[in-house]
Amino acid sequence: MKVLITTVPFGEMNRFPLEQLEAAGVEYLINPLNKKLTESELVEMVSDFDVIIAGTELITKKVIDAATNLKMISRVGIGLDSVDLLEAKKRGIIVSYTPDAPAPAVAELTIGLMLTLLRSVQLSNMEMHIGKWHRFFGRRLSEVVIGVIGIGRIGARVLQHLQGFDSPKILVNDINPDSNLNKKFNIEWADKETIYKQSDIITIHTPLTAQTKNMIRKDQLLSMKNDAIIINTARGGIINEQDLYEVMQAGHLSGAAIDVFDFEPYDGKLREIQSCILTAHMGSMSVDCRTRMEIEATEETV
Amino acid sequence: MKVLITTVPFGEMNRFPLEQLEAAGVEYLINPLNKKLTESELVEMVSDFDVIIAGTELITKKVIDAATNLKMISRVGIGLDSVDLLEAKKRGIIVSYTPDAPAPAVAELTIGLMLTLLRSVQLSNMEMHIGKWHRFFGRRLSEVVIGVIGIGRIGARVLQHLQGFDSPKILVNDINPDSNLNKKFNIEWADKETIYKQSDIITIHTPLTAQTKNMIRKDQLLSMKNDAIIINTARGGIINEQDLYEVMQAGHLSGAAIDVFDFEPYDGKLREIQSCILTAHMGSMSVDCRTRMEIEATEETV
Repeated sequence: MKVLITTVPFGEMNRFPLEQLEAAGVEYLINPLNKKLTESELVEMVSDFDVIIAGTELITKKVIDAATNLKMISRVGIGLDSVDLLEAKKRGIIVSYTPDAPAPAVAELTIGLMLTLLRSVQLSNMEMHIGKWHRFFGRRLSEVVIGVIGIGRIGARVLQHLQGFDSPKILVNDINPDSNLNKKFNIEWADKETIYKQSDIITIHTPLTAQTKNMIRKDQLLSMKNDAIIINTARGGIINEQDLYEVMQAGHLSGAAIDVFDFEPYDGKLREIQSCILTAHMGSMSVDCRTRMEIEATEETV
Repeated sequence: MKVLITTVPFGEMNRFPLEQLEAAGVEYLINPLNKKLTESELVEMVSDFDVIIAGTELITKKVIDAATNLKMISRVGIGLDSVDLLEAKKRGIIVSYTPDAPAPAVAELTIGLMLTLLRSVQLSNMEMHIGKWHRFFGRRLSEVVIGVIGIGRIGARVLQHLQGFDSPKILVNDINPDSNLNKKFNIEWADKETIYKQSDIITIHTPLTAQTKNMIRKDQLLSMKNDAIIINTARGGIINEQDLYEVMQAGHLSGAAIDVFDFEPYDGKLREIQSCILTAHMGSMSVDCRTRMEIEATEETV
């Protein structure tokens, strides 16, 4: 059996997943380009392999057609938006993923981004490192309205972490509202429009689907408070990048944090916006969660 | 009555404290240099005034001698380390402060700094803004040992915020350990040496006193784990700046966040260390806390 591991890094902090493959007598190749592959790069690489241990690169019909031996796609992480599931099904290719493993790391990063943006830590840090002293005013998590869109594994953990603070109002939205959560958390279910209008911080934890693609465009951004903060650690494309750039360039929103992009590695125009924190799709990148994801995806393969 | 307001900004986000002074018929001057004053600047400025509404600038014997009319020092914030209390007492000068007001803002900033450092958010953000894509590995608050030195108003709030996470071990130290806190929080009292050795994150919330000045020097820093993180949002001088620079320059510690400095505005050598987050004494700088501090200090004055 031959396995192509496209997601990188893999086995870097903990070799155990690679040892699992070796013990099972599996031949493997780790993505030699060491970056998220494009469709054509993947098409060229994939012909020989029985299994892809995959990241978030697009596994389209073209890729599947070129992968004549392919029997399984084992996604490291959550979200199957990158895989042409219909085409995989037609070919009888099994698709698996590791939905629980990344959630704790994504949720913690999200809280960190909220606190950083509320207090302009990244701006002061940059200024201080070039010898500029300016005391930025900020706001506290315990006095702002927080809107969480998507209350699945990650969104619920964000709510859990917010328990240690004392936010006056947490508005939540999900396609399948789970009223049991009201017993555990002090939350109010609301439609997305209400969340856009009333929240000081909006954070997205939905999958990327036909419904959520471009969910937040110029109209939605402009309906937010002038000093609102928006965070996307879910998937690129849920917030329209060009629209976000344009409204922030024009001075709307006080901050944003974007960890996921339409095309990764990202080098688009949001780079010009200092109040927009950019991170390199690091939501799941805690050593423990990443290791768990890799091990689970390897176990599925073996 | 004439009041010198040395702390800046003052009345900027909310004019109410200035209105309070005006309503009471008080003449006031806001620090025209718009920065933390040195002893000699303060000596030159202070002769006329009955009250100083003060920041953290040094109010030494020299300053007090020059302030022949001085009847009161009203500190905006917590900590009286900056005031020569013996000399003030000799002269019958009343000294007040606002110990509760800043605590919520300092505690929240501290949690934000922990999460930011654990995930290298500031490093990825800087790289992304210059078009570099590197996915940093990180750790989670819920899987590291946290050491909190100083469990007063601020330290206890840090513990409160940590409740929403699930850290395996929280080590705490205080000059007057309050065992009641064990009923509320899952903490272990420990001596400082144990905290230095065992913690992945160490955060300081003590006042600056003869005992805490230079509390953390090279020896203490080197006794910490190689990938430990240290945070000081308390007072400059508790961690020796030169020693911190030298050990980090040599590759010890995975990160630090320093909000307070020996001399402010800071422009020292820690600027060279990218894994050291620097902020401009912003612990108390949330609009709500800062306003409360200014109002309380003004009320004391009036």
